[in-house]
Amino acid sequence: MSKRIITVSRQFGSGGHTIAKAVAARLGIPFYDNELITEVARKSGLSEEFIRENEEYASHSNSFLYQLAMSTAGSYGYPSVYQKLYEAQTKVVEELAEKGPCLIVGRCADYILRERGDCLHVFIHADNAQRAARILERYGDTGKSIEQRIKEKDSRRRNYYRFHTDREWGICANYGLALDSGILGEELCVELITQAFKAE
Amino acid sequence: MSKRIITVSRQFGSGGHTIAKAVAARLGIPFYDNELITEVARKSGLSEEFIRENEEYASHSNSFLYQLAMSTAGSYGYPSVYQKLYEAQTKVVEELAEKGPCLIVGRCADYILRERGDCLHVFIHADNAQRAARILERYGDTGKSIEQRIKEKDSRRRNYYRFHTDREWGICANYGLALDSGILGEELCVELITQAFKAE
Repeated sequence: MSKRIITVSRQFGSGGHTIAKAVAARLGIPFYDNELITEVARKSGLSEEFIRENEEYASHSNSFLYQLAMSTAGSYGYPSVYQKLYEAQTKVVEELAEKGPCLIVGRCADYILRERGDCLHVFIHADNAQRAARILERYGDTGKSIEQRIKEKDSRRRNYYRFHTDREWGICANYGLALDSGILGEELCVELITQAFKAE
Repeated sequence: MSKRIITVSRQFGSGGHTIAKAVAARLGIPFYDNELITEVARKSGLSEEFIRENEEYASHSNSFLYQLAMSTAGSYGYPSVYQKLYEAQTKVVEELAEKGPCLIVGRCADYILRERGDCLHVFIHADNAQRAARILERYGDTGKSIEQRIKEKDSRRRNYYRFHTDREWGICANYGLALDSGILGEELCVELITQAFKAE
């Protein structure tokens, strides 16, 4: 089946955002990363600021309180604010995919759209040395050790993904294509993803 | 660094062997899969038949006896036959990589050559329905259910890899490129691997 949607999951510091943006531009299809936030805000009634702080990278997705908020919500007959956020995000991802060809970064989109036959799910990663260099260049020094920053982000994304999908993050079997941007280089990643998407 | 070696790890029934062979032919570099066995036999003194039955797919790599043979070997001051086989295999992989550009299938070659900067490590997989169809077409019906055959092979390769490398099999981070041959098709897999290998 010909592809209409690309989802891109990426390690922090792998250049996944930049590569994904270039792929969307090359294919002439809409690109959704932070662009999703406005739509999720509209749908959920939550503020963009709250979403920005608590979506995907939620620092407490691994915490007892977050797990509790998610799991006990049903007992009181109303969804917790985190559940509301995830549900709104899911709806936005589904609607965007329904609307037409596009590229969506993160947000468990590979899982949410797993039943569609017209998606190419991509994972982008790199080794820690290359991620560290890119993070320092892009986001600067925050005083915290770079190893710690990488470890925390990996752990948050892994936990968030596991919590909502019951799958492990970064397993080859979940992606049509997985690329090491450090080994291949950004330009080649863009080229390979574009070719994979265009192929029947 | 420009690439000289390709290692291909593959799920049973993913078409990985066929794809790898086509890549090597396209690049004009030697291809080693079962071709390795003669060399391992020469180096280890073990028979080709024994190697064929006990290398990589060793049905007992998961068993208590195999674990025992591997772990207690040292206590008696001589290597077990399985350890001897793995060591000979490792040496052959290292020597082939040293000799010149080539493509090596399986044998934990991605792990054995992990410190070299001139390798492209590839993983090829597909979903179970597509693997089942290919297995039946290629190897025929053996009386055992196809789900069981896939499960057993996956489990053996995973255990063998984990035992010798202390890493998990099929994790994106271990490969420069991972491809779903069912989604992308064999021809495109050959094309993408070839491009990734040729790029500086």
